[in-house]
Amino acid sequence: MAPLAHSVLVTGSNRGIGLEMVHQLVEMTDPPEHIFATCRNPAGSQGKALRDLADKHSRIHIIQLEVENQSSVKASVAVVESHLNGKGLNLLINNAGVNSYASLETVQPEEMLSVFNTNVVGPILVVQEFLPLLKKAAKETATEEMSCRKAAVINITSKLGSIERGFEVMVASMLPYRASKVALNMVTVCMAMELKGDGILCATIHPGWVKTDMGTEKAPLDVESSVQGILRVLANLSSSETGAFLDWEGNSLPW
Amino acid sequence: MAPLAHSVLVTGSNRGIGLEMVHQLVEMTDPPEHIFATCRNPAGSQGKALRDLADKHSRIHIIQLEVENQSSVKASVAVVESHLNGKGLNLLINNAGVNSYASLETVQPEEMLSVFNTNVVGPILVVQEFLPLLKKAAKETATEEMSCRKAAVINITSKLGSIERGFEVMVASMLPYRASKVALNMVTVCMAMELKGDGILCATIHPGWVKTDMGTEKAPLDVESSVQGILRVLANLSSSETGAFLDWEGNSLPW
Repeated sequence: MAPLAHSVLVTGSNRGIGLEMVHQLVEMTDPPEHIFATCRNPAGSQGKALRDLADKHSRIHIIQLEVENQSSVKASVAVVESHLNGKGLNLLINNAGVNSYASLETVQPEEMLSVFNTNVVGPILVVQEFLPLLKKAAKETATEEMSCRKAAVINITSKLGSIERGFEVMVASMLPYRASKVALNMVTVCMAMELKGDGILCATIHPGWVKTDMGTEKAPLDVESSVQGILRVLANLSSSETGAFLDWEGNSLPW
Repeated sequence: MAPLAHSVLVTGSNRGIGLEMVHQLVEMTDPPEHIFATCRNPAGSQGKALRDLADKHSRIHIIQLEVENQSSVKASVAVVESHLNGKGLNLLINNAGVNSYASLETVQPEEMLSVFNTNVVGPILVVQEFLPLLKKAAKETATEEMSCRKAAVINITSKLGSIERGFEVMVASMLPYRASKVALNMVTVCMAMELKGDGILCATIHPGWVKTDMGTEKAPLDVESSVQGILRVLANLSSSETGAFLDWEGNSLPW
């Protein structure tokens, strides 16, 4: 099997789905040459599992990145560039995100803005700053067909961001989270249209309701199965899926 | 015909669709007893047309309201309450909003946040603060069937906020605007679910692409026809339409 991509960047990779992605990427038979594992505070106690993993694998590069902070994003681009030795970045996975359980009656304006900033503005900032490296990767690949091997942006969203299907499981109102994820889906479709001409694939993936710190213990799906599914889906994405909203099993979801 | 509602509040009512709404409401055969016409700066030059209209009709009450500013919203509630003499507010129309033409590559984080704040957080704040008056109106009406006559929140959205249909007319990227309007649609559905038990109807309406300062001269639809359509749709809304996304002609739009 061809490798998923020569280089991959995963935001929010110190725990949950992000950490498991880095773990499964590095354990692949034909792993990416460079795995850029970013998180807000790699040196802190919450970065220990990631540091332990990186200690065992030199292809994992831990990079400090706060998605809401433009200068932090710019600094991370410089570090990534120094590792890539003139090559582009193939696959950017916007996985970092925050949750919120507030309802219409309880939500504070500050929480609406803060969740939107991390879950929507953050991914936009990251894509804007990494765009030159993504475009370079797209140009390096001779095939016209889009893929994660060539150049792609994957935004990790949630079924709770589907207005049509997201209320099937009504755990709590989660109004700020739902509003941010549906906006991220819209942004992904805008991205897909704007970046199609550059050969960069964009898609939004629902990882399932996963047993993580964010998903809680009540979730039905373990993180290993979710990430196995996501990586299988990513390996098979092609031009016809740019702008798609898929779940971890590859099923298309309605907006 | 029964009156549309005993009391109506329209935000952003100094121009465009908001101003025309106030105009058509007051000219109805059986007009609302109270029309609360709010805008950011009623005393400024942009408030002149509204002031001229209110000078001719004592049932129009002009009220200063900045939707992003909680204390301004609270102050407006006190003014509305003083006019209602113990009655509730039947119909709240969140019409105030801002546009943005930015694309993925050009948008600044500040613009994403500012558009989201006005178009999404603003309507939430307004509903939160007016909720006691809306609940009071719902309780005053004996019929179980929901309607604008009883108690309703109408959020003015845009077809550009439809991920499925919003790219049919591709004027410009308008990424921040699209992201805000799809989020407003999600918020409307959350509102509809949370307020159903209180008998408050919530719906989101696309006014068409209208010749206004926001819609520009290129728009195919005049503001009079759009508002005639919207008011006809509002008059016919019932329980089965709570949470719906309709256009000015009453057609249902996909998310």
